Amino acid sequence: MIRIQHFSAKGGLRALAPAGLTAHLLRASQGTLWVDFEGEPIETCEPILRDVFHFHPLAIDDALRETHIPKLDDWGDYLYIAFHSVGFDLDGGPHVDTREVDFFLGKGYLVSHHDESIPMVDKIWERCERDLRILGEGPDHTLYLILDELVNSYMAAFTQIDEAVDALEDKILESSSRETLADIFHLKRALVMLRRTLAPQREVLNGLARNNYDVIDSRDRVYFRDVYDHLVRLFDINESMRDQVGGALETYLSATNNRMNEIMKTLTVITTMFMPISFIASFFGMNFFAPNFQLPSWTGRLAFIVMLSLTVGVPLSFYLWARRRGWVGE
Amino acid sequence: MIRIQHFSAKGGLRALAPAGLTAHLLRASQGTLWVDFEGEPIETCEPILRDVFHFHPLAIDDALRETHIPKLDDWGDYLYIAFHSVGFDLDGGPHVDTREVDFFLGKGYLVSHHDESIPMVDKIWERCERDLRILGEGPDHTLYLILDELVNSYMAAFTQIDEAVDALEDKILESSSRETLADIFHLKRALVMLRRTLAPQREVLNGLARNNYDVIDSRDRVYFRDVYDHLVRLFDINESMRDQVGGALETYLSATNNRMNEIMKTLTVITTMFMPISFIASFFGMNFFAPNFQLPSWTGRLAFIVMLSLTVGVPLSFYLWARRRGWVGE
Amino acid sequence: MIRIQHFSAKGGLRALAPAGLTAHLLRASQGTLWVDFEGEPIETCEPILRDVFHFHPLAIDDALRETHIPKLDDWGDYLYIAFHSVGFDLDGGPHVDTREVDFFLGKGYLVSHHDESIPMVDKIWERCERDLRILGEGPDHTLYLILDELVNSYMAAFTQIDEAVDALEDKILESSSRETLADIFHLKRALVMLRRTLAPQREVLNGLARNNYDVIDSRDRVYFRDVYDHLVRLFDINESMRDQVGGALETYLSATNNRMNEIMKTLTVITTMFMPISFIASFFGMNFFAPNFQLPSWTGRLAFIVMLSLTVGVPLSFYLWARRRGWVGE
Amino acid sequence: MIRIQHFSAKGGLRALAPAGLTAHLLRASQGTLWVDFEGEPIETCEPILRDVFHFHPLAIDDALRETHIPKLDDWGDYLYIAFHSVGFDLDGGPHVDTREVDFFLGKGYLVSHHDESIPMVDKIWERCERDLRILGEGPDHTLYLILDELVNSYMAAFTQIDEAVDALEDKILESSSRETLADIFHLKRALVMLRRTLAPQREVLNGLARNNYDVIDSRDRVYFRDVYDHLVRLFDINESMRDQVGGALETYLSATNNRMNEIMKTLTVITTMFMPISFIASFFGMNFFAPNFQLPSWTGRLAFIVMLSLTVGVPLSFYLWARRRGWVGE
Amino acid sequence: MIRIQHFSAKGGLRALAPAGLTAHLLRASQGTLWVDFEGEPIETCEPILRDVFHFHPLAIDDALRETHIPKLDDWGDYLYIAFHSVGFDLDGGPHVDTREVDFFLGKGYLVSHHDESIPMVDKIWERCERDLRILGEGPDHTLYLILDELVNSYMAAFTQIDEAVDALEDKILESSSRETLADIFHLKRALVMLRRTLAPQREVLNGLARNNYDVIDSRDRVYFRDVYDHLVRLFDINESMRDQVGGALETYLSATNNRMNEIMKTLTVITTMFMPISFIASFFGMNFFAPNFQLPSWTGRLAFIVMLSLTVGVPLSFYLWARRRGWVGE
Repeated sequence: MIRIQHFSAKGGLRALAPAGLTAHLLRASQGTLWVDFEGEPIETCEPILRDVFHFHPLAIDDALRETHIPKLDDWGDYLYIAFHSVGFDLDGGPHVDTREVDFFLGKGYLVSHHDESIPMVDKIWERCERDLRILGEGPDHTLYLILDELVNSYMAAFTQIDEAVDALEDKILESSSRETLADIFHLKRALVMLRRTLAPQREVLNGLARNNYDVIDSRDRVYFRDVYDHLVRLFDINESMRDQVGGALETYLSATNNRMNEIMKTLTVITTMFMPISFIASFFGMNFFAPNFQLPSWTGRLAFIVMLSLTVGVPLSFYLWARRRGWVGE
Repeated sequence: MIRIQHFSAKGGLRALAPAGLTAHLLRASQGTLWVDFEGEPIETCEPILRDVFHFHPLAIDDALRETHIPKLDDWGDYLYIAFHSVGFDLDGGPHVDTREVDFFLGKGYLVSHHDESIPMVDKIWERCERDLRILGEGPDHTLYLILDELVNSYMAAFTQIDEAVDALEDKILESSSRETLADIFHLKRALVMLRRTLAPQREVLNGLARNNYDVIDSRDRVYFRDVYDHLVRLFDINESMRDQVGGALETYLSATNNRMNEIMKTLTVITTMFMPISFIASFFGMNFFAPNFQLPSWTGRLAFIVMLSLTVGVPLSFYLWARRRGWVGE
Repeated sequence: MIRIQHFSAKGGLRALAPAGLTAHLLRASQGTLWVDFEGEPIETCEPILRDVFHFHPLAIDDALRETHIPKLDDWGDYLYIAFHSVGFDLDGGPHVDTREVDFFLGKGYLVSHHDESIPMVDKIWERCERDLRILGEGPDHTLYLILDELVNSYMAAFTQIDEAVDALEDKILESSSRETLADIFHLKRALVMLRRTLAPQREVLNGLARNNYDVIDSRDRVYFRDVYDHLVRLFDINESMRDQVGGALETYLSATNNRMNEIMKTLTVITTMFMPISFIASFFGMNFFAPNFQLPSWTGRLAFIVMLSLTVGVPLSFYLWARRRGWVGE
Repeated sequence: MIRIQHFSAKGGLRALAPAGLTAHLLRASQGTLWVDFEGEPIETCEPILRDVFHFHPLAIDDALRETHIPKLDDWGDYLYIAFHSVGFDLDGGPHVDTREVDFFLGKGYLVSHHDESIPMVDKIWERCERDLRILGEGPDHTLYLILDELVNSYMAAFTQIDEAVDALEDKILESSSRETLADIFHLKRALVMLRRTLAPQREVLNGLARNNYDVIDSRDRVYFRDVYDHLVRLFDINESMRDQVGGALETYLSATNNRMNEIMKTLTVITTMFMPISFIASFFGMNFFAPNFQLPSWTGRLAFIVMLSLTVGVPLSFYLWARRRGWVGE
Repeated sequence: MIRIQHFSAKGGLRALAPAGLTAHLLRASQGTLWVDFEGEPIETCEPILRDVFHFHPLAIDDALRETHIPKLDDWGDYLYIAFHSVGFDLDGGPHVDTREVDFFLGKGYLVSHHDESIPMVDKIWERCERDLRILGEGPDHTLYLILDELVNSYMAAFTQIDEAVDALEDKILESSSRETLADIFHLKRALVMLRRTLAPQREVLNGLARNNYDVIDSRDRVYFRDVYDHLVRLFDINESMRDQVGGALETYLSATNNRMNEIMKTLTVITTMFMPISFIASFFGMNFFAPNFQLPSWTGRLAFIVMLSLTVGVPLSFYLWARRRGWVGE
């Protein structure tokens, strides 16, 4: 779908966007034009971008054919911006979903392009429809509104991740099944991935806020700086959550380790207590001491008492020794 | 609560701050005005900041609605500064508590905003009340006093953390329960979090000390450099404590590991000493050698002596062998 | 093999390249000359590079005798560029294969040199043969076409690695044989090696895109920037795959660890259940209680019942205790 | 103690330093004055620094009241330098001891302040006393001599640490007691701490060598560069020793691990060899085969031979199998 | 030994170098003088360097008395360069041997100083002797030849290390004795040490190639850039070998770990198979079931069959269960 919005001193216009109309509006300077391409095949987008807007073939390739990490290219008359929306999904292990949106920002126009519907773009589209004066503040301000909306939407993803991290920490305290470990690794990777999306987006907004581009009104740069500050804060939250997940991993590992130590201790204590007395019992089961044999005194009353004392005494003294060394807990 | 202090050549004034009065004082140039917002709802703060001080909507949003990592924004006529007070709390595991304070520093005025009461701000407020000449040194000097007080208060948090770390090191030497490990991780994370608060605050003060802002008297920059030096030192102490906690973790892990090795050695020594002699005892308990059977010589006096020698000799020789290899300590 | 292509206003030329012809074409300014050396011995290349093109001896050494990490040298009249083609091979453990291509880019000519046949260079060679106007856009544009083709070919290697990583992840879930670990390490190292090839190539293209070299038409720099952007994206994909392989390693290790824990638990549970009852059985096998001996009551009916209860009760109660502590899974 | 040395064209002077004398000498330009405060209470130092030298209150605070990481502050007319002497102590675990020395370097004077006696400062003091011409080369040269002496004294600490590291490596080869591990961690932390002292001192000397301060004769900057080079080298040695200690830790851990593996192998080999034959012995001890029972053939001569062969053969074949797999060393 | 070579338009000269001759040659401008000090005591070198060449005392100290990490000092009229030759030695564990060479490069002269004979320096010395025109290209070119030779000689060390690494990888596959681990650590440290030598040498050559020093002919800088490129490549190879050694360590550790897991599995499988049946055997060895006792049915034919089935069935079913869980390999 290709749709346009146009605002000029004489009034506004909303329509689907054939190339002719777009070219007409573009020539009628003195206004703001927003053209949005959503899930449109390359064949229909390319002629408009090339013949109406005269974008550079490489910039068009960037927007239509290729996937990019967020970036900002200055083409003189216009800026090309690649940006990502971020979603968080728990199905199939927690993971992060990004969708690319491309923008061309020029004197008097904004072109946006995305393969899938992006609610944040639609929301600003509708706000502009309801109040055409918004477009009247220039295409750079409209771009700011969209980027701000996109960045705000990250917060929702962050809240979901935060809840997932909290749920994880509770789960670790209760029981440490194998899925917990998988969840920790999933969240860890989701946060690494988010970090890799946030860092270049931060650079994009830093560029918009600091560089002196023709197509951005210098008074509007402060708005981009504001979005930039939000991204810096999100980045910081991201780092905090990575710490938290790292802490959860440490807790998990130390809990598992503690349990294994306990198991080994039990094994050792039991073995060490029963091996000697089992030997004693075997010793007195030998045929040397069989009733009708030649060493009756070895199985006499005294031997029996000694044997019984050993049977009770050996494990008991080992137990006390082990307790003194802290092997057996209270 | 909104309160104001005003100092001019003609005298001082202290009052609660309705918008009208503030506007009046602001216009009466030649003096220093400090307006402090404490836990005031947005609805009452916003009109004053917007209509009286004419701050930029984005700066007001930063101060009233959003949480920020410490930062310094230059808005030309005024500076916006987000800063944190730091507290350390042992309840529920040692952790760090930060509270945000926002400042607007302009020609002749200082505006501070915080949601909760902050004792360090109150302390400077009272010092200014007692000696109005302090305000007379300009709003930048007042800001310095507050920031210095805030940074000094970190020292208290550091002392508490230091005590917690020392207590931890003692605990490890005594007994290595599971809570010790949890404490180590808590302290580690508290120090990481502190680090993330200190680093941007250091940048804020670096900015105040080095950049040539209109609203800061160039002679006062040296004071901000002093606070900056304190932050650098705190950062260094923080790193030292992180080393110390890291060392505590290493000690804990190596103690746990040593104990586990000891346990495994004991298990092995006991098993290895008793298994062979248990076999010997079982061997002579077989029915082949029963008294009324055909192999009496296998259970004769000679066999008995051999068996007894083995029973004593096998574990003894293993013990000596293990001792030579260092498996059994002195 | 040394082959040349030449394009001028008067027409094109394709031939093998004796030194004389090359010198002639080079003097006949106004055109574009491409000389390609493929697997030619040093003795035949060196005179041409030295006497016809007058390249600096060090630059010739770089191209003919030495292996280089990708680099870009500005020799004033010409640029020397060392670049790598990348292939991925699964034989003998997954690993990365790089081949060096050297370029000299001057006013009106492009010299390429490689020891082995490189399909990407051949492909552009043939495109130029089919359409001589391509050469007409200048040697820098031809260089761009080759570099673009080389970088595109990395994508194929990346896809193969990606498939190998996916296959790996499936293998880990099924069974964790020792070869899986070897594969993880191989892939890890392949990706580290790729990273070390990509990083300097990125710098080479950054240099071509940003510096103002005489031999590169300023309008063509945008094409090099495009290749640069591709390399940045490849670098990013590389980092993602390193994360994925890191995650696979973590999963492998935690699966192995889980299995080992399970094994240890089983060992402990079995030992702890059978040791006490084995002792009981040995106890009652001693000759003290032999039928014709003096303690018949110790092997009487009551003792038998007690013994039987213990034999059933001791392992059962241990089992329940272990279950309560989470040692035995559901 | 406050002591002064003064050198002028007319001659030298040495005395204890009351404020009046200091002020007098300071005014009598044309000479070099060195005032040294050693362990003097703040109350006596502060008036002199404030009223005689007119240092900034913040700089006086830095010197008298606060502890600092090494730093260099340019106050225009004078430089403030915080520096550390370094000592190494083996008592209570190897650790590093630092003491702070503060310097004020101005036109014609050098002020040094330290809480404890520092032999390196005393040594230069005495050299100046013996040969007053040294002071005649200006206060910056005197400062150089002190800093050089301080940095040289680090070498002694490094030699001691080096010996401790060597002793450690020998100890590891001999026996790996728990104290060895503690020593490794202590040395590791001592080296980390040294590193944190060296790094800012290096920056201080870099500043003295590179910046164009009024109070430093430009010809003398080369001397500070020399001290800087020493610090760079010490830093490098420090890194080497950290490697060495890291290597010692690796060796220790791998030795401990090897021993544990050996212990586990022994446990397994013994268990695996004796368990089957113990079972065989128990089997033939059952009452089924008692002499006067119904299965005499099970305990007949053939069974005995089979039993004996198994008793010898089972552990033997396991031993050979284990040997083939490398479980039992040569 | 102090030897000199001198080249001027009038001819060359080779001799041992008394101070007088050196001073004479130095004054007779218009030529190139190379003085080489080899293993000469300080007392003989110092007067020449100080009185003939007038080097700064600190520079002389650097060259004669101190050990340095490679560095480049610009003393205006001359450059001081500290450089290292690198050798690799397998005796006493693989390790790296470095020797320091110091150079002074001035207008018309080159002074080299080294404590031990360095073959690379001798080689260039002899080349200059054979063909005096080499000196005629100026002292900077001679310096280039020596540095190039030194850097080329590193390649030999690298080849040896590479062979050691390959031998190591083979050894790991064959058997993993303790010496293998020691070798890995030795190589690891040798490579870290090489890295620390290469990095500053790279900086030295970067300085020679990029800075505009009076004593270096600007056309010769390209040669130093070539040596710099070699060092960059050596650094890259060094990193690759560090990866390889890291991979060898990983392989070693995972092989050791696999073996330990196998051992534990065997222990567990054997214990778990024999413990229950040993119990069964012991059970039927109790005196309750002795032939002339009251429970003959417990040792009757049926019991015997049940016992036999259990003895076969219990270990068999455990074996099958363990196999299904992947505990016992194919």
